[in-house]
Amino acid sequence: MIASTPPTPYYAVIFTSIRTEVGEGYEATAGRMADLAKEQPGYLGVESARNEMGITVSYWKDLESIKKWKQNTEHLIAQASGRNKWYQQYMTRVCLVERDYEF
Amino acid sequence: MIASTPPTPYYAVIFTSIRTEVGEGYEATAGRMADLAKEQPGYLGVESARNEMGITVSYWKDLESIKKWKQNTEHLIAQASGRNKWYQQYMTRVCLVERDYEF
Repeated sequence: MIASTPPTPYYAVIFTSIRTEVGEGYEATAGRMADLAKEQPGYLGVESARNEMGITVSYWKDLESIKKWKQNTEHLIAQASGRNKWYQQYMTRVCLVERDYEF
Repeated sequence: MIASTPPTPYYAVIFTSIRTEVGEGYEATAGRMADLAKEQPGYLGVESARNEMGITVSYWKDLESIKKWKQNTEHLIAQASGRNKWYQQYMTRVCLVERDYEF
């Protein structure tokens, strides 16, 4: 679903990734991280799609919210598993959303 | 493929969409727009994934490049077809990429 975000400005974290062939634990952890993110202060929504590559965009009120989520203990463990097992390559981009328009 | 972008800052356009069931002409136009975007001044790369929803993120040098691409005549026609035929709903977000880190 397209995230229903507040008026700009707000922040987006674009996470693009290429998976390994290791699937073990991935779906459970991804689901848990999605649930946990929703509970964080400043969380505004998420959008996700995957075929050959995955793109997950999460939306946040400010940089402080993003920094806290990045350093969340359970999330740090998941990030380490991601690097060790599930992702061949990824890129994270932290962005200020200046304008948006919808149809 | 994960886009190889220059050092920050640069711009991202996050385009998230839900398709209709109309497929006619979509693939050809999407392919043509991807090729045409690559020829535009200030274009830096693109990433795209789709399952239930589609997310395409294109990267640009500056706001001026984004504005010119948005107003490109062939692109304007494709955008109108998108609203008339292919998309139930979409959101476009124009963002300043402040930081990025990769694995």
